[in-house]
Amino acid sequence: MGSYEELISYFEDQLSKQAFGYQPGELYAPINYTIRLGGKRIRPILTLISCELFGGKKEEALSQAIAIELFHNFTLIHDDIMDNAPIRRGEETVFKKWNANIAILSGDTLFALAYQYAQQARIDILPETLSVFSKTAIEVCEGQQFDLNYENSNNVSVEAYIEMIRLKTAVLFGASLKIGALVGGAKIEDANSLYDFGINIGLGFQLKDDLLDTFGDEEVFGKKTGGDIISNKKTFLYLKALELADDQTKAELIELYNTNKLSDQDKTQRVKEIFTELGVDQSANSLIDTYYMEGMKKLDTISISEASKDILRDVAHRMIDREK
Amino acid sequence: MGSYEELISYFEDQLSKQAFGYQPGELYAPINYTIRLGGKRIRPILTLISCELFGGKKEEALSQAIAIELFHNFTLIHDDIMDNAPIRRGEETVFKKWNANIAILSGDTLFALAYQYAQQARIDILPETLSVFSKTAIEVCEGQQFDLNYENSNNVSVEAYIEMIRLKTAVLFGASLKIGALVGGAKIEDANSLYDFGINIGLGFQLKDDLLDTFGDEEVFGKKTGGDIISNKKTFLYLKALELADDQTKAELIELYNTNKLSDQDKTQRVKEIFTELGVDQSANSLIDTYYMEGMKKLDTISISEASKDILRDVAHRMIDREK
Repeated sequence: MGSYEELISYFEDQLSKQAFGYQPGELYAPINYTIRLGGKRIRPILTLISCELFGGKKEEALSQAIAIELFHNFTLIHDDIMDNAPIRRGEETVFKKWNANIAILSGDTLFALAYQYAQQARIDILPETLSVFSKTAIEVCEGQQFDLNYENSNNVSVEAYIEMIRLKTAVLFGASLKIGALVGGAKIEDANSLYDFGINIGLGFQLKDDLLDTFGDEEVFGKKTGGDIISNKKTFLYLKALELADDQTKAELIELYNTNKLSDQDKTQRVKEIFTELGVDQSANSLIDTYYMEGMKKLDTISISEASKDILRDVAHRMIDREK
Repeated sequence: MGSYEELISYFEDQLSKQAFGYQPGELYAPINYTIRLGGKRIRPILTLISCELFGGKKEEALSQAIAIELFHNFTLIHDDIMDNAPIRRGEETVFKKWNANIAILSGDTLFALAYQYAQQARIDILPETLSVFSKTAIEVCEGQQFDLNYENSNNVSVEAYIEMIRLKTAVLFGASLKIGALVGGAKIEDANSLYDFGINIGLGFQLKDDLLDTFGDEEVFGKKTGGDIISNKKTFLYLKALELADDQTKAELIELYNTNKLSDQDKTQRVKEIFTELGVDQSANSLIDTYYMEGMKKLDTISISEASKDILRDVAHRMIDREK
């Protein structure tokens, strides 16, 4: 089986050969723009890897890998409208470069294109893979809605946050692995265990994202840290800090997130001080470890070789022990 | 087989028994609101009818009929954002009643829910019905994009307009019939002929919509006429008028649609006068007849009884010879 890097290069190559429609250009230019912008391609690679782990060929899982990558890109286009985000992957977002209507409609089209790939699964697994795909799509929307709700709420628990990132982020990792496994010929029990592995690693992945955005090394991270703090994003770090802080610090933190008294730099510095004093970076790391261990336990139950499990352990490390 | 009215009542009853999710409420309340608002339910009824015409039971086509109705409602939610439309079916649109973000996201969810029903087709026809469903979804998006493009263009031909309404409106009628036929056990050739029948009737349906919006009897139509004129919509009537008018009238018409010199009432009255002088209402009626006849020709090629064809002829009449 190919290395992670070989699979990425295979996937990029195949993706670049796909034609995603032509006319009207206003609809397809943003789709091609978004897909060509790149990204880590983690999700489709998970699909290819898990197919191969169960004895399938990567080519057999390609349509499913593309389906998942297109779906992911569709969610980014729509999320960027909702979050009013001007930049994605260092370039203008679709709704900024074109407009909101075009972003809505090219997103919708991309969603349907994703299904055109998803429905190419082998007939004996088609109902099951489609069922995973649609259930996941709905859950990702639910996660995004919870995320929007929490923006305007001062009463979000850490537990609710974890459930939100499970829906918004982790389920798609689980689905990528499960669908790949089904294509590869996995028994449903193994595919489900791999799904659970993906959920745990996905939760760890998002918590690591929260950590890097605040405490990352800017040179390695490749962009300025503190973005979540400046935009008052209620990440794990913030919510855990509210949970652990005394009344005075809690009041200060809430004020920092609800007023604009300090400059971005001063605000970021003060919030990071509070986070560090309360040790929420440690809490995050410890929770990431918990999810990692939980994921490993799920892996133990799957009937594949130790060498294959090592490949998945490597994937888990890439997703969690990253610095960017 | 049941009458049209019996099928509507069966469908409404079954639709009302479906649960479309619960949490978060911000996501599912707009979905349930939209579906309960009603509408003519023409598309799902076409699916049920065409299933029965080929010997299937309406119950077998229910999931496909629901899929199509959910998809149609999804497009309405997103179209209303793009068109900045405050009212739909006499009630506030989702984006007005809630907000644009909720309308985007509840629309996305509804699209995925539609697929959850679409993927319940019998395994032997699943690849074909899904293929029709996704292709249609993409074409409807393309049609909407052309519609948006034409809003800001002064150079739209009647031909381009017809292609736009084919994509935006007619293909979904074709798909509704074709998918129902496949569920009912139709040969692919018959299903395709029924699709073509649907396209023609769908084109007639939309042209009739254009006519009623301008020349309808307000009491029967149930709302004020002239809406398309007031909102400067480039309907068949307008585009055909530009095609037929002398230079002076053409300039007047373009000015009427590009400035706000006259009151809504005076503008509507003057535009209607021009339309009537040029006879574009007659042109529309004559084109509707052409599409109707074309649809009937397609019907002739299908291997079902004359009694069954009468049912489809009745459907065509309902869609085209309506006053509201």
